Amino acid sequence: MPTRPVSPPLLYADTESSADALYFGRISVPDPFIALGAKNRKYAVVSALEFGRVKREAAFDVVLPLENYLRLARAKWPRRRVGIAEVIFLVARELGQRRFTVPDDFPARIYVGLTSLGLKLDLAAGALFPQREIKTKAEAEAIRRGNYCSARGLAAAEAVLRRSQIRGRFLRYRGRPLTSERLKFAIEVACLEAGAVSVNTIAAGGDQGCDPHQRGSGPLRPHELIIVDVFPRLIASGYFGDMTRTFLRGRASDAQRRLVATVRTAQKAALGAIHAGVNGRAVHGQVAAIFARRGYETKATRRGSVGFFHGTGHGVGLAVHEAPRMSGSIDYILKAGSVVTVEPGLYYPGLGGCRIEDMVQVTARGATLLSRYPYQWEL
Amino acid sequence: MPTRPVSPPLLYADTESSADALYFGRISVPDPFIALGAKNRKYAVVSALEFGRVKREAAFDVVLPLENYLRLARAKWPRRRVGIAEVIFLVARELGQRRFTVPDDFPARIYVGLTSLGLKLDLAAGALFPQREIKTKAEAEAIRRGNYCSARGLAAAEAVLRRSQIRGRFLRYRGRPLTSERLKFAIEVACLEAGAVSVNTIAAGGDQGCDPHQRGSGPLRPHELIIVDVFPRLIASGYFGDMTRTFLRGRASDAQRRLVATVRTAQKAALGAIHAGVNGRAVHGQVAAIFARRGYETKATRRGSVGFFHGTGHGVGLAVHEAPRMSGSIDYILKAGSVVTVEPGLYYPGLGGCRIEDMVQVTARGATLLSRYPYQWEL
Repeated sequence: MPTRPVSPPLLYADTESSADALYFGRISVPDPFIALGAKNRKYAVVSALEFGRVKREAAFDVVLPLENYLRLARAKWPRRRVGIAEVIFLVARELGQRRFTVPDDFPARIYVGLTSLGLKLDLAAGALFPQREIKTKAEAEAIRRGNYCSARGLAAAEAVLRRSQIRGRFLRYRGRPLTSERLKFAIEVACLEAGAVSVNTIAAGGDQGCDPHQRGSGPLRPHELIIVDVFPRLIASGYFGDMTRTFLRGRASDAQRRLVATVRTAQKAALGAIHAGVNGRAVHGQVAAIFARRGYETKATRRGSVGFFHGTGHGVGLAVHEAPRMSGSIDYILKAGSVVTVEPGLYYPGLGGCRIEDMVQVTARGATLLSRYPYQWEL
Repeated sequence: MPTRPVSPPLLYADTESSADALYFGRISVPDPFIALGAKNRKYAVVSALEFGRVKREAAFDVVLPLENYLRLARAKWPRRRVGIAEVIFLVARELGQRRFTVPDDFPARIYVGLTSLGLKLDLAAGALFPQREIKTKAEAEAIRRGNYCSARGLAAAEAVLRRSQIRGRFLRYRGRPLTSERLKFAIEVACLEAGAVSVNTIAAGGDQGCDPHQRGSGPLRPHELIIVDVFPRLIASGYFGDMTRTFLRGRASDAQRRLVATVRTAQKAALGAIHAGVNGRAVHGQVAAIFARRGYETKATRRGSVGFFHGTGHGVGLAVHEAPRMSGSIDYILKAGSVVTVEPGLYYPGLGGCRIEDMVQVTARGATLLSRYPYQWEL
């Protein structure tokens, strides 16, 4: 049965929130703009504010001025409040292209507008650009560079923790209480120095660390597990790094040591299980089985879940969360060339949380580590 | 004619890219999640990864576990690959809510899925939350704080420029050439210190500054106009600041002085013209008229536009660009309580670009300045 040829892409997005838009045009544009394919060429429609820069620097073959098409649209539909849908319609007609593929997150208003104008829009079956999942050598190198920035952030955090003094139930650094905020500041400055912006950096101690997306606030304490998760974005290219270490300043309890050792054991098992063709769900299952075997129960409580209640890993590229996925809720066959985090974690309020995260590129027979940072954690 | 009551909101977005989602739930969530209204209560549906934190910290009345509804959906549609649309459908049915209002940028795939499941979705006529445009006292204070962070960034840039030495065609700072990258680093660290993340900071000199969204790269030179535009986001609340100054290290030419003085004159005129009830297009028109009267022509060239080719201002809040607008392309009546930038600019390759940006809150009779930084520019 012949397959229908895939229609060219159509996007309306800014590159801050749409990795597809950045992948397609290879330029950072802070406000939503029109990007589309037609006759194997890439088109952008941008305002005067962006025109010169996009024309010079982006990967588009043709850059069209938004204002001209808005003017044409107003002339064609004088009684309507024209907008982006009308502009896209006019450009598409000019290019003789009546059918496009749009991503899942294409704006509903424009979707409805274009459909009622008579354009045919196909929702992408999965990713708009499936090739985004398979990283080129240059992309893997950029991600490695992103992880280098993460590692600089981790090193900054470790240095601050090592230099902090234990004063009863608190840590002091340079004469003042050490807080999550101060630790994050040190991390984020280190990332900037290395050429990346780290937003939503996590430096969460004790019970705060038991919420995997809790960023951490207030005083950090000695003898407690501190999760440090750094996922900076390279300023130059937009690729992300994503690494996590769990530190403790002071003396760990036996229970904390066993927790951290178990997470690291599970991480090594997952790293060893990854290769092209393996199901991400199976890798996740191995991690979950190790935790269960060692008596670490996962369950939902009224205040939130405890144990291991997030995925083992996710793809990283121009988005910090992208395909593939390794989780218990979905089958996903890993492909050679894809890049994925490996980040098991265990979280028990009272004891604390531990997550250790590295990143690999999947190969035919295994996985190549793209992140490097020591695993020493008791400081 | 009776108006139809507005149906409650439905969102599927992360709070990094959707200010609506942040406004509705008052919590930062890095991955897309379901948020909706029903019976005057706010509901969120989130994964185990977010559940505890969102339940404790967000403005939602009820937080539901995504995994449970995914399980129900799989049971109900065993032969379908279920997703967010099916979950929303089940939650809506449980709440007895069959009609929602969605924002323009609601994801098309979910829109199509829900419509085919029988839910009625209204596209918001304009903003999903029109009240976002009118800032409360607390919001204005947060924005003022954001501008304080911008001002810290501008001060850092000015300090670096003042300390830079003029060496022929280059500037040197601490023994090395001063570049846009180094200036941006100083700005971004100052913003972090003040509690905000500055992404896409602009520090662009000479002809680079003639592209309003060019961030700047490479060596900065003496005697050239350097546009510094800092729009950081407060880490604690998500509100933005947005301020611009144009500096010059060395000695300005008469043409540069006239350019800067004209931009500042136009800015003052715009600031004086703003009050509740005025049309943003009229304010913009005053700026354009001043430029035209003084002989500063605006026109499109093959390499991009020159003159004054962006809007005079835009609203700022949880998004850096939001309602209202003051531009030549749209009528927009300013309302009391709204917050808007005032940022005329002129750009001529060869001479350089100048933009001066402050921010005001619109009042019945005028405008209250929410940004403070000196206008001395020749350093």
